[in-house]
Amino acid sequence: MNEHEQLEQFMRRAIALATENVESGRGGPFAALVVRDGRIVAECTNTVTTSCDPTAHAEINAIRAACRELGVFQLSDCDLYTTCEPCPMCLGALYWARPRRVFYAATRDDAAAVGFDDAYIYDELGNDPHDRALPMRQLLRDEAQVSFSAWEAKQDRVEY
Amino acid sequence: MNEHEQLEQFMRRAIALATENVESGRGGPFAALVVRDGRIVAECTNTVTTSCDPTAHAEINAIRAACRELGVFQLSDCDLYTTCEPCPMCLGALYWARPRRVFYAATRDDAAAVGFDDAYIYDELGNDPHDRALPMRQLLRDEAQVSFSAWEAKQDRVEY
Repeated sequence: MNEHEQLEQFMRRAIALATENVESGRGGPFAALVVRDGRIVAECTNTVTTSCDPTAHAEINAIRAACRELGVFQLSDCDLYTTCEPCPMCLGALYWARPRRVFYAATRDDAAAVGFDDAYIYDELGNDPHDRALPMRQLLRDEAQVSFSAWEAKQDRVEY
Repeated sequence: MNEHEQLEQFMRRAIALATENVESGRGGPFAALVVRDGRIVAECTNTVTTSCDPTAHAEINAIRAACRELGVFQLSDCDLYTTCEPCPMCLGALYWARPRRVFYAATRDDAAAVGFDDAYIYDELGNDPHDRALPMRQLLRDEAQVSFSAWEAKQDRVEY
């Protein structure tokens, strides 16, 4: 099996899990794998409605499971496979998790066509806070700087 | 206490938690509260480095804790207070959690000034997948549609 065939094999595994996730009623039509050195470290599906957790998208679940499995808070030597282009929440999570590469199958427009809001959220994120559909209001900006000063003053801080 | 004073009181509580989170070494200088009917439902801090979880930002932790507490997967009748403008991951999570209002204190630029990448991630999200610093590659788009077809065909699906 050449490298491209191996990539496709992992993605086919993810697609099968996503379909099974719908059929079993566990959640939305999405799954993700984290792979290191050709081995699956974590494989997860979307469980928003059954785990009562709006953040339980497949990618977030897979990042959390892989980090727990490896005892790390960054996935620098891992690849992530997801059956759909990540929504802004999951893409943001990927920037914090810093995997080596991301492979995706369906697009945000494919997801929008079956009722998932990703494209809308991408648009909203580009707006200024006061121009968003989600009401956002700033309070006590000056007072909040004290937490950042504490961070800068802490000699043994663990950065991430 | 008038309404504005009450909003500030909740934000002061969050700021105190964020500062304490740094001093105790539990994580980054961030905290968030979820409030319903004037009562704190969940209060959480950033625990990325101590819980081995790159998604464990204060807002994500608070959304998850509040949903668990209330047994729901959306926070429609809740407000969320966060000591800093949410990063794209957390803002995406807020769009999925759908709180009534979001209050924030420091800005993304304040966060960037003490070394947190939020502003950079906002910029990256606006780029097309093939123009991002994070390598992203599409595979098997056509095959992935089968999971979406299963979703559309499922009569008793629970939407979110």
